[in-house]
Amino acid sequence: MLTPEGRLTYESDMLTLYKGIPDVVVLPTSTAEVQAVVRICREARVPVVPRGSGTGLIGGATAPLGGVMVSLTRMTEILELDLVNRCATVQPGLINLWLTNAVRERGWFFAPDPSSQMVSSIGGNVATNAGGPHCLKYGITTNHVLGLEIVTGTGDVVSVGGKAADRPGYDLTGTMVGNEGTFGLVTAITVRLLHLPEAVKTALASFASLVEASEAVSAIIAAGIIPAALEMLDDAMIGAINAAVGKVYPDGAGAVLLIELDGPLAEVEAQAERVAAICRERNALLVTVARDEAERALLWKGRKEAAGAVGRITAAYLLQDAVVPRSKLPQIMREMVAISKRHNLLFANVFHAGDGNLHPLICYDDRKPGELERAQQANEELLHACIALGGSVSGEHGIGMDKAKNLPLQYADADLNFMFRLRRVFDPDGLMNPAKLLPSHPACGEGFRPSRPTLPAGTWV
Amino acid sequence: MLTPEGRLTYESDMLTLYKGIPDVVVLPTSTAEVQAVVRICREARVPVVPRGSGTGLIGGATAPLGGVMVSLTRMTEILELDLVNRCATVQPGLINLWLTNAVRERGWFFAPDPSSQMVSSIGGNVATNAGGPHCLKYGITTNHVLGLEIVTGTGDVVSVGGKAADRPGYDLTGTMVGNEGTFGLVTAITVRLLHLPEAVKTALASFASLVEASEAVSAIIAAGIIPAALEMLDDAMIGAINAAVGKVYPDGAGAVLLIELDGPLAEVEAQAERVAAICRERNALLVTVARDEAERALLWKGRKEAAGAVGRITAAYLLQDAVVPRSKLPQIMREMVAISKRHNLLFANVFHAGDGNLHPLICYDDRKPGELERAQQANEELLHACIALGGSVSGEHGIGMDKAKNLPLQYADADLNFMFRLRRVFDPDGLMNPAKLLPSHPACGEGFRPSRPTLPAGTWV
Repeated sequence: MLTPEGRLTYESDMLTLYKGIPDVVVLPTSTAEVQAVVRICREARVPVVPRGSGTGLIGGATAPLGGVMVSLTRMTEILELDLVNRCATVQPGLINLWLTNAVRERGWFFAPDPSSQMVSSIGGNVATNAGGPHCLKYGITTNHVLGLEIVTGTGDVVSVGGKAADRPGYDLTGTMVGNEGTFGLVTAITVRLLHLPEAVKTALASFASLVEASEAVSAIIAAGIIPAALEMLDDAMIGAINAAVGKVYPDGAGAVLLIELDGPLAEVEAQAERVAAICRERNALLVTVARDEAERALLWKGRKEAAGAVGRITAAYLLQDAVVPRSKLPQIMREMVAISKRHNLLFANVFHAGDGNLHPLICYDDRKPGELERAQQANEELLHACIALGGSVSGEHGIGMDKAKNLPLQYADADLNFMFRLRRVFDPDGLMNPAKLLPSHPACGEGFRPSRPTLPAGTWV
Repeated sequence: MLTPEGRLTYESDMLTLYKGIPDVVVLPTSTAEVQAVVRICREARVPVVPRGSGTGLIGGATAPLGGVMVSLTRMTEILELDLVNRCATVQPGLINLWLTNAVRERGWFFAPDPSSQMVSSIGGNVATNAGGPHCLKYGITTNHVLGLEIVTGTGDVVSVGGKAADRPGYDLTGTMVGNEGTFGLVTAITVRLLHLPEAVKTALASFASLVEASEAVSAIIAAGIIPAALEMLDDAMIGAINAAVGKVYPDGAGAVLLIELDGPLAEVEAQAERVAAICRERNALLVTVARDEAERALLWKGRKEAAGAVGRITAAYLLQDAVVPRSKLPQIMREMVAISKRHNLLFANVFHAGDGNLHPLICYDDRKPGELERAQQANEELLHACIALGGSVSGEHGIGMDKAKNLPLQYADADLNFMFRLRRVFDPDGLMNPAKLLPSHPACGEGFRPSRPTLPAGTWV
């Protein structure tokens, strides 16, 4: 793809703060083509930036140093469905939901369900080790990847893992998931498929405050119940959603919990009663259990429209992805309110409470000078607070360009040094998705410091 | 520990084919002491061999090149119990079962349950990424490790993972689990704890042949039931067990399945009925469901005494640990019978059928010349057959000295090269548990070729 207009489409992912137009975009259709691209780029010493659907939130699928972007959107085949061994092998460009659509009729599903699952690719999910609402019960992407084929930065095609339960030797599959293209390009993915649960039940509970709702979350988990999903929304979010899609959530609540239970019918019914009782004990204002599929769809409708509804309350926002141990949720909620007040910024919350994975939208007006900077400051303060409580700078979105600078908050120099050295195992020349995932780390003296390469003539594809 | 007699205790693990007496044995009690040992050994360029309880089956905790053995049996503390966040942090020498014993009263357990769990250490389980009967439902060790502290071959203390759900950056925790001490010594382990299930039910089904029992296994899984455990025993094993502990399994059967279901009572009861029906449809000779805890304990008694009972039928045996995709079980059973006949050797089977993880005991008489060699030949043929069916050379025991030579069956040169390079990231000098896990691989030109180092004077501890 040669025209500047054509390449402009690829200048950023959904986090538009980070931009970089690739010099070339290639759209391979096979592993052999991907390998050829990597080998040519390696010889020419040109950066290679993989890209799936471009729905990432971390500045991962962007080319800040130019180079060749490898768009995997033409590699969308299901290569093998092996229901006897409960797995499927797919190409990286396959849209997440398409896989479940292909097997649902036969009673199966693919569990990782990032909110973007209608448009994001499984390759992108693997690159960022994506989570989603139902990962509380089912685990994140890495828990569902059995094997990978990857074209490494050295130009080798390597197969790791497979259908068998364990893998002898080092667990390279686990190491590969979440590498954000810094080791190379994943060209085939073997994933676990699960049986659809017999029954699903969804409950909604409203509370006077985020803190009380957080305490109910801890109480539910402490009772030994692991819901399939346990989502929390705050008053700002409830208001925005009700304004956008009609009144689906109760007015006047400080927070609502959306609690989904799945499994055998008898278990689900018993658990729904217990969850409702726990919420009432924890001062819920209102508890509703959906009686049928239509009521259930309505409860989820608001959650699913959240991202779109936010446009009604803010011109722009920063989306945080930090994590705290679940037991620290009430505490971080209090700190979040304090940070919001200190910077006079609206925080709207919709997040995976069961995982302790926070997604506050830090709202700001990009037309007002200084407001972005204030939002960024608030964002950093919240990150520091999460780390101080034993949390993590990222839960499910990944690192990309956005969070690389934050890793030293969480890791010692020795830890980061090993990550740098691990990266070099697969990408000795530092050409695979440069400037992503790891900081240029002065302490270790061996950080990645790429310089803008010049494309030799004749490498335009 | 200085005396030759004292060090002799440490010459091998439970696979006594591989022997090597360490020059020194140290018994540290803290991370700082472990770090000091590694640093001294690194300066002196002396191999470091970690050892837990010594119950491994792969020649992993032995010192074929001499050097310093670091026995972790004095590091047995539970450092933190954090039930709110469903985890515990322990020292590596803690015995697997002791952790469950410490939390069972409060309704929790640690899921990985290698057959050695009464004596094997959690550090050893992590080193080999151990499995166990209940790993079919609950996953293997790596699925339960949230974080690690490790003293690397470079002498650094590195912390990876933690209590939070996801980890930003590369998944070093996953990479560390199963490294068999080749990256360094794990000094603290944060593991997931699970709620004890509400109910447990165990069924026994007998079949005319291993092939028919294998087909029942596939049918149970295909019906969407994932038993907590699904163990198979063949006629040789049944005979040995009945002779050793009284008649616990039906005579005249070619194979029995031991099927354990756990979860909510209503689900378990419904599943037990379905499992019994499936076994009957698949020509089971007899199906029994234990009615109470006493009957359940009796069904398991035979399985648990299997290793001891084998002494009644053979002087010595090789224990295989290969894996096939579950759907290939009937086929590999046929091949196993053929290999057994070809070499005129008795194979006794007791294994995790649900995982496709085979554990035939290849029986031989070590007093008859040539019989060990024949058993080894049969062993290799079975391994090749498993690989040809898409399987793996090791399911849960690990690689050690025993399986290192077999890895090229399963991995291409490029794959093994990356493993070699990964090892060097953490152990650049090649001193950590040398001659284990990876083959000296001629193709890659950078295989590990250790030479016996000389201990400098004054390094005796």
